[in-house]
Amino acid sequence: MTMQDARTRGIGWHKSYLTGPTGSARPDLRVPVRQVHLTNGRDVTLYDTSGPYTDPSVDTDVRRGLAPLRENWIIARGDTAEYPGRPVRPEDDGLRHTAPRGGLRNLDAVFPGRPRLPRRGRPGQPVTQLAYARRGETTPEMEFVALRENVPVEIVREEIAAGRAVLPANVNHPEIEPMIIGKRFLVKVNANIGNSAVTSSIEEEVEKMTWATRWGADTVMDLSTGRNIHTTREWVLRNSPVPIGTVPLYQALEKVDGRAEELTWDVYRDTVVEQAEQGVDYMTVHAGVLLRHVPLTARRKTGIVSRGGSIMAAWCLAHHRENFLYENFDELCDILAGYDVTFSLGDGLRPGSIADANDAAQFAELRTLGELNTVAKRHHVQTMIEGPGHVPMHKIKENIDLQQEICEEAPFYTLGPLTTDIAPAYDHITSGIGAAMIAWWGTAMLCYVTPKEHLGLPDRDDVKTGVITYKIAAHAADLAKGHPGAQEWDDALSDARFEFRWEDQFNLALDPDTARAFHDETLPAEPAKTAHFCSMCGPKFCSMKISHDIRRTHGGADLESGPAAGTGEREGTEEEIRAGLEAKSAEFAAAGNRVYLPIAD
Amino acid sequence: MTMQDARTRGIGWHKSYLTGPTGSARPDLRVPVRQVHLTNGRDVTLYDTSGPYTDPSVDTDVRRGLAPLRENWIIARGDTAEYPGRPVRPEDDGLRHTAPRGGLRNLDAVFPGRPRLPRRGRPGQPVTQLAYARRGETTPEMEFVALRENVPVEIVREEIAAGRAVLPANVNHPEIEPMIIGKRFLVKVNANIGNSAVTSSIEEEVEKMTWATRWGADTVMDLSTGRNIHTTREWVLRNSPVPIGTVPLYQALEKVDGRAEELTWDVYRDTVVEQAEQGVDYMTVHAGVLLRHVPLTARRKTGIVSRGGSIMAAWCLAHHRENFLYENFDELCDILAGYDVTFSLGDGLRPGSIADANDAAQFAELRTLGELNTVAKRHHVQTMIEGPGHVPMHKIKENIDLQQEICEEAPFYTLGPLTTDIAPAYDHITSGIGAAMIAWWGTAMLCYVTPKEHLGLPDRDDVKTGVITYKIAAHAADLAKGHPGAQEWDDALSDARFEFRWEDQFNLALDPDTARAFHDETLPAEPAKTAHFCSMCGPKFCSMKISHDIRRTHGGADLESGPAAGTGEREGTEEEIRAGLEAKSAEFAAAGNRVYLPIAD
Repeated sequence: MTMQDARTRGIGWHKSYLTGPTGSARPDLRVPVRQVHLTNGRDVTLYDTSGPYTDPSVDTDVRRGLAPLRENWIIARGDTAEYPGRPVRPEDDGLRHTAPRGGLRNLDAVFPGRPRLPRRGRPGQPVTQLAYARRGETTPEMEFVALRENVPVEIVREEIAAGRAVLPANVNHPEIEPMIIGKRFLVKVNANIGNSAVTSSIEEEVEKMTWATRWGADTVMDLSTGRNIHTTREWVLRNSPVPIGTVPLYQALEKVDGRAEELTWDVYRDTVVEQAEQGVDYMTVHAGVLLRHVPLTARRKTGIVSRGGSIMAAWCLAHHRENFLYENFDELCDILAGYDVTFSLGDGLRPGSIADANDAAQFAELRTLGELNTVAKRHHVQTMIEGPGHVPMHKIKENIDLQQEICEEAPFYTLGPLTTDIAPAYDHITSGIGAAMIAWWGTAMLCYVTPKEHLGLPDRDDVKTGVITYKIAAHAADLAKGHPGAQEWDDALSDARFEFRWEDQFNLALDPDTARAFHDETLPAEPAKTAHFCSMCGPKFCSMKISHDIRRTHGGADLESGPAAGTGEREGTEEEIRAGLEAKSAEFAAAGNRVYLPIAD
Repeated sequence: MTMQDARTRGIGWHKSYLTGPTGSARPDLRVPVRQVHLTNGRDVTLYDTSGPYTDPSVDTDVRRGLAPLRENWIIARGDTAEYPGRPVRPEDDGLRHTAPRGGLRNLDAVFPGRPRLPRRGRPGQPVTQLAYARRGETTPEMEFVALRENVPVEIVREEIAAGRAVLPANVNHPEIEPMIIGKRFLVKVNANIGNSAVTSSIEEEVEKMTWATRWGADTVMDLSTGRNIHTTREWVLRNSPVPIGTVPLYQALEKVDGRAEELTWDVYRDTVVEQAEQGVDYMTVHAGVLLRHVPLTARRKTGIVSRGGSIMAAWCLAHHRENFLYENFDELCDILAGYDVTFSLGDGLRPGSIADANDAAQFAELRTLGELNTVAKRHHVQTMIEGPGHVPMHKIKENIDLQQEICEEAPFYTLGPLTTDIAPAYDHITSGIGAAMIAWWGTAMLCYVTPKEHLGLPDRDDVKTGVITYKIAAHAADLAKGHPGAQEWDDALSDARFEFRWEDQFNLALDPDTARAFHDETLPAEPAKTAHFCSMCGPKFCSMKISHDIRRTHGGADLESGPAAGTGEREGTEEEIRAGLEAKSAEFAAAGNRVYLPIAD
């Protein structure tokens, strides 16, 4: 593996790229990383989701969109073809009542960037990473994630083939940097964005997406529900380096003026095709909310809290018929297989309160999702399963264990869970606790929760706080799972902390800006960044400084050759230690008995 | 149990008091609670740590201090006596070099409030809650916490007698509202305050204490290390409704000008007496850092990160003698027993990084703490054990299990633990995850971590964020442990959420101010507080509204008598459900098929 630097090495960090072995068949395979340059001359390489925006050598323009990195890979497979596509209609943007009737708009009007036609698999031919993996084919996407995760590509292919991992990558979203979601890989984080009838704009949504990925979001769901849904999505997709997920039901409902009972399979299918042609990488589908499940929610403390779940429940009741998504699931699978859209089978009946956790309604739906998972796999559609919600700590493990059993280890994708209901405005924290735990136990991707959950729409700061909180949960889980290499990051930061390399500590932090700002509040002067004490204790009381002194005079660097050598992680004999300490004690006295060394300024 | 309201019932909430049964022997036993008044006419009673400051009928004055609630209880026991006490010296406040030499100051000069003499047990007579409990005596303090925790007083006495719980209550701190720390009770939270050589003032520290308890801190540790230590502590104690903890070693070190090797047992003992006379309720004592443990830390990633631990390690090495706290532990026990100061046996060798978690040094010290716990109990001194630190999730349980085994179930009191090192500026979150888990598994009290950990001194906002985060962790653990009554709080809030009672949601929140502010950012108008939709989804998409509709027309209130009756938490037969849904479907159509109801004004 070699390293291509985007620009000359500077202070701090910069964007860099991992490439395959020299002479590899794929010179176009460049995996972005964040390369942190430490003041001790070492480098630390971190996973990077921020896309070309953090590469100063790339000229990005949101009106043009990102370069279609995967386009040649997709074309080279020869199993897809462009086609005219479904015409874009005013109602796709929720404009039925305000725009002139009958006017069709084409994609050029929606997005000013490079013109394109949608692409799909030839009839009856699944063009999914799952289908390729099952045939034993290694795609460039698989090679990309293998490099990115630092694992053999065989593992990637096997996990996808077994349905234990998904690689969401719509053939119409060639701009993405491929990533993988599965329990044998790094735990991933999704950030939700989306306008609503109440507030927000297209520009804000695109900005939220780039902002979320800058802080580490691995995928972004566009949950827009108001005007300009289609156009917003187009802009987000063309500018997104990460897979984009949606809930097609929200847009379908807009098309029938918000009247759930007027939803039809035709409207829904048309919406799925519309979004698949745009390039949506995974779709939440609430096909598991069955007619017979609905009465199970009647005595709940908080009923149905999933928007999609409640819409489908209302439809089922209004028509007294089975969920049309469940009834037409085979056809839906065929559509998704033609674009490699990944299923995210929605948990429409997830608990919305501690009282409702793990109840009959929730687990009845999970069993249905298990059935649907089997059907989807038969059609070679990549599939993950969504999970709760609000769950107290002692009921979390049952969720992941049952999901893994029922859904044949398909990736679990959970919202938190929130471990208590009592802290609105802090639900990133109530849920970060549950998220870390459930990810440790096997959840592959975590859907973030922001401080505004239950209260309002997240702004820029909320998105950042949500993403950082969930990166903490994900990384804590990577550590607990013993993910290879995960602890190197912690070790590098702790080394920097112990050696008072403040700048390295900041640059290695999940959020360097805030870490630096907090330090500066107490000790703003530049010398404090190199001073051998922390701002908490002042110069006289620093325990790390005392520790250094102990190490220097009583064992550290010269421990190897000293009498206490070899006692590192086990206790030496009483005698060994005594001898060692006596010798060291003399050294300590000879050095003037000084525990506190003069502060270098 | 009856309720005494501090003022007439108003909107929102107010301070109230629980008293014993009518005709009880103790009319002076009034347990403070936060009484939340819901708009549906119901009340929710919450545990309250904020002291008289939130009772508008009490006239507080920080220069006078709080009323000595426990004074009569202590006097009535007849086992303590006032005595002149140790003279206060300028060096107690770190003023050796600046104040005129030899000048003695009395307590009146230190604190302007009511003059008092210190009190202690008659010679050889332990006056600890542990001694009383072992003799089968029920103290008013035990009755107070029994009411406060809503458990029989026998449980309180038994848990204290067994050493599984502590009730920290120095006879010289009569101002406190008694509280209990033990795994059978609500999980408690400690907040640290303390000036340092670099910044802060007396007034700020007192204000931090009242601020921390306002948000739910159950105890406060005063970790001051700079000037005016004695005076700051006096002001904090006289104004604190919660137990105060300290680390006497910090002040002892000040008295020898910060030179660890000049520390002596005499200086330390004098400092302990000084602080015990002031009323410190529990003291962290680093008696478990033994000479033979120190080499075990030499190869650590981050050495010794506990200030107390590193000071004692330096002393041991400088003198090549055993820790003087360990050597004089019996005498120390006798002193503490005379004031009912509780031991918090410090984990001076706790891991300061993920790499060092659960290592030989940490567990060697834990075994020593186990020995010391046994000695302390022999002297009838209440004892809790401090725990780490930085620990990845998969290594957390071993900590609590081992501590419980080695220390005969003495209360565990842990700092976090932090589950990753990579997020400076967010260590309230990295540690809140670990705190919730370890508390679920049995930790009795959690020492908070603020966002400034590792970076600087916490300000007012940081203290609040730290306390709220830890209240979340503690409550999540109470839920997971199935603590009786814990879920009532969540249920009340979730009911309010489902019924769109926004004001009730805010008033029940851990932080009503922020919850209300976040909601107002998106939908500031007053009608939005009662509107039947949430600010996230807008009026058309609210899942809760749809759920209500389902409940009303398909099972909810009239489920009892309808054809689907009894299907609540279990699935009915196919036939029952079909019959029920058909009947309901007709109702739905009759009501105009309206899923979305008109929004109230």
